[in-house]
Amino acid sequence: MEPRIFLLGVHNHQPVGNFPFVFERAFADCYLPFLQELLKHPKVKITAHYSGPLLEFMREKKRKAWAILKELVGRGQVELLGGGFYEPILTMIPEEDRQGQLRLMKEFLEENFGTRPRGAWLTERVWEPTLPKTLAAAGIEYTLLDEEHFHYAGVEDIHGYHITEDEGYPLKLFPIDKKLRYLVPFQSLKDVEAHLDEIGAGGGLAILGDDGEKFGLWPGTKKWVYEDGWLGGFLAYLEEGGVQTWTFSEALDRRDPKGRVYLPPASYEEMTEWVLEPGDAAVFRKIRTDLPPEARRFIRGGFFREFFLKYPESDHLHKRMLFVSRAVNHRSLAEAKKELYRGQDNDPYWHGIFGGLYLPHLREAAYEHLLRAETLTPSRFGWTAADFDVDGQTEILWRDKTFALFVRPSQGGGIIEMDHYPLCRNLTDVLAKRPESYHAQSSPEEAGGKSIHELAREYPQGAEAYFNYDRGPRHSCLDHMLPPETTFEQWQAGEFSEIGNFADQPYTYRMTNRALTMDRTGRVLCEGRERPVRVVKEIVPGKKEISIHYSVLNEAGEPVEFLFGSEWNFYQLIEEFKREQGRVNLCGGRLIFEASPPAGIWTYPLRTLSQSEKGYDIIHQGLCLLPWWKISLEGKKEFGACLRLRDEGAK
Amino acid sequence: MEPRIFLLGVHNHQPVGNFPFVFERAFADCYLPFLQELLKHPKVKITAHYSGPLLEFMREKKRKAWAILKELVGRGQVELLGGGFYEPILTMIPEEDRQGQLRLMKEFLEENFGTRPRGAWLTERVWEPTLPKTLAAAGIEYTLLDEEHFHYAGVEDIHGYHITEDEGYPLKLFPIDKKLRYLVPFQSLKDVEAHLDEIGAGGGLAILGDDGEKFGLWPGTKKWVYEDGWLGGFLAYLEEGGVQTWTFSEALDRRDPKGRVYLPPASYEEMTEWVLEPGDAAVFRKIRTDLPPEARRFIRGGFFREFFLKYPESDHLHKRMLFVSRAVNHRSLAEAKKELYRGQDNDPYWHGIFGGLYLPHLREAAYEHLLRAETLTPSRFGWTAADFDVDGQTEILWRDKTFALFVRPSQGGGIIEMDHYPLCRNLTDVLAKRPESYHAQSSPEEAGGKSIHELAREYPQGAEAYFNYDRGPRHSCLDHMLPPETTFEQWQAGEFSEIGNFADQPYTYRMTNRALTMDRTGRVLCEGRERPVRVVKEIVPGKKEISIHYSVLNEAGEPVEFLFGSEWNFYQLIEEFKREQGRVNLCGGRLIFEASPPAGIWTYPLRTLSQSEKGYDIIHQGLCLLPWWKISLEGKKEFGACLRLRDEGAK
Repeated sequence: MEPRIFLLGVHNHQPVGNFPFVFERAFADCYLPFLQELLKHPKVKITAHYSGPLLEFMREKKRKAWAILKELVGRGQVELLGGGFYEPILTMIPEEDRQGQLRLMKEFLEENFGTRPRGAWLTERVWEPTLPKTLAAAGIEYTLLDEEHFHYAGVEDIHGYHITEDEGYPLKLFPIDKKLRYLVPFQSLKDVEAHLDEIGAGGGLAILGDDGEKFGLWPGTKKWVYEDGWLGGFLAYLEEGGVQTWTFSEALDRRDPKGRVYLPPASYEEMTEWVLEPGDAAVFRKIRTDLPPEARRFIRGGFFREFFLKYPESDHLHKRMLFVSRAVNHRSLAEAKKELYRGQDNDPYWHGIFGGLYLPHLREAAYEHLLRAETLTPSRFGWTAADFDVDGQTEILWRDKTFALFVRPSQGGGIIEMDHYPLCRNLTDVLAKRPESYHAQSSPEEAGGKSIHELAREYPQGAEAYFNYDRGPRHSCLDHMLPPETTFEQWQAGEFSEIGNFADQPYTYRMTNRALTMDRTGRVLCEGRERPVRVVKEIVPGKKEISIHYSVLNEAGEPVEFLFGSEWNFYQLIEEFKREQGRVNLCGGRLIFEASPPAGIWTYPLRTLSQSEKGYDIIHQGLCLLPWWKISLEGKKEFGACLRLRDEGAK
Repeated sequence: MEPRIFLLGVHNHQPVGNFPFVFERAFADCYLPFLQELLKHPKVKITAHYSGPLLEFMREKKRKAWAILKELVGRGQVELLGGGFYEPILTMIPEEDRQGQLRLMKEFLEENFGTRPRGAWLTERVWEPTLPKTLAAAGIEYTLLDEEHFHYAGVEDIHGYHITEDEGYPLKLFPIDKKLRYLVPFQSLKDVEAHLDEIGAGGGLAILGDDGEKFGLWPGTKKWVYEDGWLGGFLAYLEEGGVQTWTFSEALDRRDPKGRVYLPPASYEEMTEWVLEPGDAAVFRKIRTDLPPEARRFIRGGFFREFFLKYPESDHLHKRMLFVSRAVNHRSLAEAKKELYRGQDNDPYWHGIFGGLYLPHLREAAYEHLLRAETLTPSRFGWTAADFDVDGQTEILWRDKTFALFVRPSQGGGIIEMDHYPLCRNLTDVLAKRPESYHAQSSPEEAGGKSIHELAREYPQGAEAYFNYDRGPRHSCLDHMLPPETTFEQWQAGEFSEIGNFADQPYTYRMTNRALTMDRTGRVLCEGRERPVRVVKEIVPGKKEISIHYSVLNEAGEPVEFLFGSEWNFYQLIEEFKREQGRVNLCGGRLIFEASPPAGIWTYPLRTLSQSEKGYDIIHQGLCLLPWWKISLEGKKEFGACLRLRDEGAK
C-alpha cells in the first residue's frame, strides 16, 4: 500500500485593532486548546502560521500558549511559517514594505523560536505573478495557494507542489485541497480517511492549509472539535492510522516538484466574486454554474485590486497608506515603519464574508497607526497640492501639529479626510451605504445566490431602512441647496431634491500660505428657473482650529430663496457626541464644531447592514451633520457664514 | 456639432535578425510611402512608434525616410513613442533590463530627434498590473492597450483615457478601438467617417493604435492603400473633414482621465487563445461564442507567460536569456547589455499568427546575440551545477572558450544546449513537431475555428507528413535502445519501439574538474523479458572538442541484443552538412562529428508546418542524427563507444 502522506497547515490571525475580548476568547476557545491537543500527539507534525498581532499578544499575555508553541517548535513537531508580519495583502503594499514586513516576521521567529521560516503564509492567498521575486528576495522558498489558482492555469494535479518563477527567481507552490478544507474538521473521520486513502493510492500528498479558527472559534466548532472529541480522534488517527504527517519543508526535501506553472492573479474563488458589483456578481455566479467543468478554467471573476474601485473608502485608505509609506520609507525611521506596517493589516481594506471594511474599529485602528507613523515622521507643515490618490485630479493637503486636511476641489470642493493628530484619529472616516450582493434588492430574483425569502428570514428587523443607499461617498464640507420647505425627515431619508449643482461638481481653487479658497459659480433652481449662484469657501487653518468661511452670492438680478447646508460626516459614536446651543461637541468634548451666524443643525446616525461569518450586522458608522441656513437673497446680494472646528485640548 | 477628435497611433517593427530583404521591402512598400503621404498633409497629426531595429536600420540605410521622419517630428506633426528599444515583451525580461531598454530608446530619441517620449508602445500589449511602476520609473506617462483589456475589468467606455497605478505610481492608458482597427485601412472612407461621427457625437475620442505594416506590407494593401489612393483620401478627409487629429500627449493635456481602472493581465484576445493547448483553445473558442455579451468580461484565456509551458523551446530560450541577463547585469558592461537586449526581441519567444518561434533565423539571431553578450562578459570556465531554468531540477553546465554545454541529468542525461562561441551559435536549437490548433487533426470537427475541409484546401501539398508529432523536445545525447531489426524509415517516421527506458529517464551524475559522468541502470526488453542494463556516459571536454564516452553494460546473466543509438539534433541547413566515411561535417566543415567504433549514422531533416500571416509554411528546423551500433552482449559484458565533436577552426 502507498503511504498516506498528509501536510496540515494552519493559519491563525486576529486583525490589528480587534477588541481585546475577541483575542481573549480566541485563545481560550481555540488557539490554546488546539496546541494542548497537539502536545498530546507528539508524532503528528503540522505547519502553522501565527500573524504578528497574535504573536505579540501571545508573547505578552498568553504565556501558557506561548510556552507550548515553543515546546512544539523545539521538538520539530511544528514548522512555523513566515509572511508579512501584520498580515498585509502583499500585492497591495509597496515592495519596500513587503520586504520590511517579511523581515520583521523572520527576525521575530529567529529571536523567539530560533527558527528561520522557509515558507510564507500568503494573506488571503492573493496572488500576482510577480510575487516570486518578492518572496525570493526575502529568503522564502514556498507558499500555499488554493487549488483554484492552479485550475485557472489548467493544472489538474493538486497532490504535490509545483514550481514557478519571476525574472528567474523560483518559488514553490503547494495547492490547498478544497475538499479537505470542507472535510476538516466538519465531517466524520471516516470521510477524511477515505479522501486521504484516495490521494495516497495515487501516490500524492494530501495538502491542507486553512484558518485555525475553524478549530473552536467558528460558530459551533468549540463543542464539536473539543468537547465531542473530533480533534483528539483525528490526531490519534493521524498518529496511529498509517498516516505520515510531514511539514511542508519536509515535503520540499523529500519530493520533486510536479513541474513548472505560471498562475494568473487569483485568490480563492469566493473573493473573485466579492470584489464584483452586485449586478456583475450575479452574472458571474450564473455562468459559473451553467458552464461545463472543462470550461471553468476560463471563468474568472474580479481581482483583488478592484476592491479599490468598488469601495471608495477602501481606495482612500489604500492611497492614504501609500502616501504615508512614501514619507516613512523616505526617512527610514524604524518606529514609524512599524506603525505603518500595523496600518497595513488587510482586514479593513476589503469586504467579503467577514466584516472587514464595514468594521469601524478596524478602520479606526488602521488610521490610528498610519497617523502615528506620520507623527513620527518629520514633515513640512502647510498647504501642498498633490494627486495623492492617483485619480488624475489634484487634491489639496493641509498639515499642522493638530490637523491634517485632504480636500478635493474637483468633487464638490469636499474635505475627503480630516485628521486629528493628538488623538491619531481620522475624524471623517464614515462609510457610505451602498448596494451589496447579499442585500435583498440587489436583484429581484436572487441576492448572493439566495432567494429574497431566504434572505428576509435572516435579516435583522427593520433591515429595509439600510437599503436607502447614499448618493456617493460620505465626504464633508459639501454644499447643498435645498428647497426652503425641506424637512429633517426628508434629509435623513435621502428624499430631498438637490436644487443646486455644487455638492459633486468641480470648484476652482487657489492656495495662499494662509488659506485655500475654492470657488464655483453654479445654478440654483428657484420658482422653476435656474439662477446663477456663486459659492466661495475659504478654508483657513488657525491655531488648533480650522475655519471655513462661506460666501454665497446671488449673481442673478432676481431674488433667490433656498436652504443652504454644508454636509459633514464625522466618525463618532453617539456617546462621544453632544449638541449644545448653536454648537456640537465631538470626541467627548475634545472638539467643538460651531456655526456663525447660528445655524440649524440636523444630525442623524449613519448605519449600514453588512454580512459577517455570523449572519448580518447593523453597524453604526458615524454621525451625519448638516448645519443649514435658510437664505433669501435679493439680486446681486451675498450671504456670509462661518463654520469652525476647534480643538479644546486634553481635559 | 461635437468635434470629431481622432488619435492615430502607428506601430512599426521588424524583428532582430529578420532578412535584410524584408527590411528593404518594408521601407520601399510601406514605411517610406506612408511618411511621404503624411508629409503632404501637414495638418494631420499622428503618434508613431518605430522599434529599435527599424530605427537603427533607417538611420544607417534609409536616409530619405529618416529625413522625412525628422522633418515631421520637428514640425510637431508626429509624436514619437518610446518603449523597450529592441521590442521586448516587458513582463518577460528582468526589471533591470526593462529600465535599460526603455532608457536606450529614450536616449536614442533625444539624441536623434531632440524629443523625449511621454508614452510607450507596449510590445504586443502584454499587460501585467505591476507595469505602472516600471514605466513610471522610466519617465513614461502613458501607453496604449486593447479595448479587451478594459472589458475584462468591466470598463465599457473606451473613448478616452483611464488612469491606473501600482504602488501609487500612475500610468495613463488609452484603449484601442477594435472596430477602428478593422476599418482602417480596410473599409471605405464612408464607414470610417460614420464611426468617427458616432464617437464624436458622444463627446469621446476615437483612438486607434495598430501595426504600420497594414499600410502597404500586408498582402494586398500596397495596391489598396497607395495605388488606389486609400491613404491619400483618408488623410485628406482628416485634414478637411472637420476632424481634429491630436497626438496622444495632446489628449493628455486637454482632457481629464475617465477614471481609475485596475486591469488584470491580458493582451489582445487572439493571443490569449494562441497560448493555449489545442484542446483548451477549442473549449475556449466555444464558450466565448456561446456566452451572452454581458458574460464575456469573465471569460479569460491564457496569459503570456504560459507560452513557456506550451513550447519547451520558448521556455529554454527565455531561461537562457535570464541566465545571460544575470551575468551581464552583474558585470554591468554596456556592450554586452546591448547584445543581451537584442536577444530579448519578443518575436522568437512565442507563436501566434506570425511565425515567431517557428522561424529558425529569428531564434538563431536571439541565440547569436545572447552568446555574443556572454563572450563579452568574463566568466569562469569549467563545470557548474545550477537549476538554470527553474524547474526544480539541477542542470550541469560546461563553459570554455569554444563550447558551452547545458546537460539535464534528470531527463535522459540529455544535452539541452550546445553552443559554439566562435560562431555564436546554439548548435542544438531544433524545434520539435507538436500539435497546433490550426493542424487538421487537432480536433475532428474544427481547428482554429475552421473546418477540416477549409484547412485542407489551404495546406501545402504533403502537409500530413508534418503531423507525426515528436515525443518530446529535440534534445541531444539521448540514449535509445531499439529492436535490432529497426529500419531507418521506422526511425524517421517515429514508428519505432523504444525497448529501453533511458531517453527520458533520470541519470545520476557526478562532476570532476575533467568530466561529467552520468549513470543509469535501466532495463531493455529482449526476447520478451526485461534485462537490467546500465549506461554510463562521460562527457569530457578537451581542447576545442567535446567527447562522449559511452559504456553499455549488460547486468543480466543472459545475453542481450539491440540497436543502441545516441540521438542528436543539430541546427543545420542541409547545405551546411556533409556526410563522409564514418563522420559528419557540420557548419560547412567547421565542425566534425565522429563516432568510434564506426557507427551507422541515420540522418533526416526535421520540418514543421506552421501558420503565418500569409498562410502555411513548411520550415526546415534542423537535422536529426542517430549514430547507432548493433550490439550483442553476453551476460555481464560491456560495450564501449565514443562520440566526438571537434572544432576545426576557421578556414
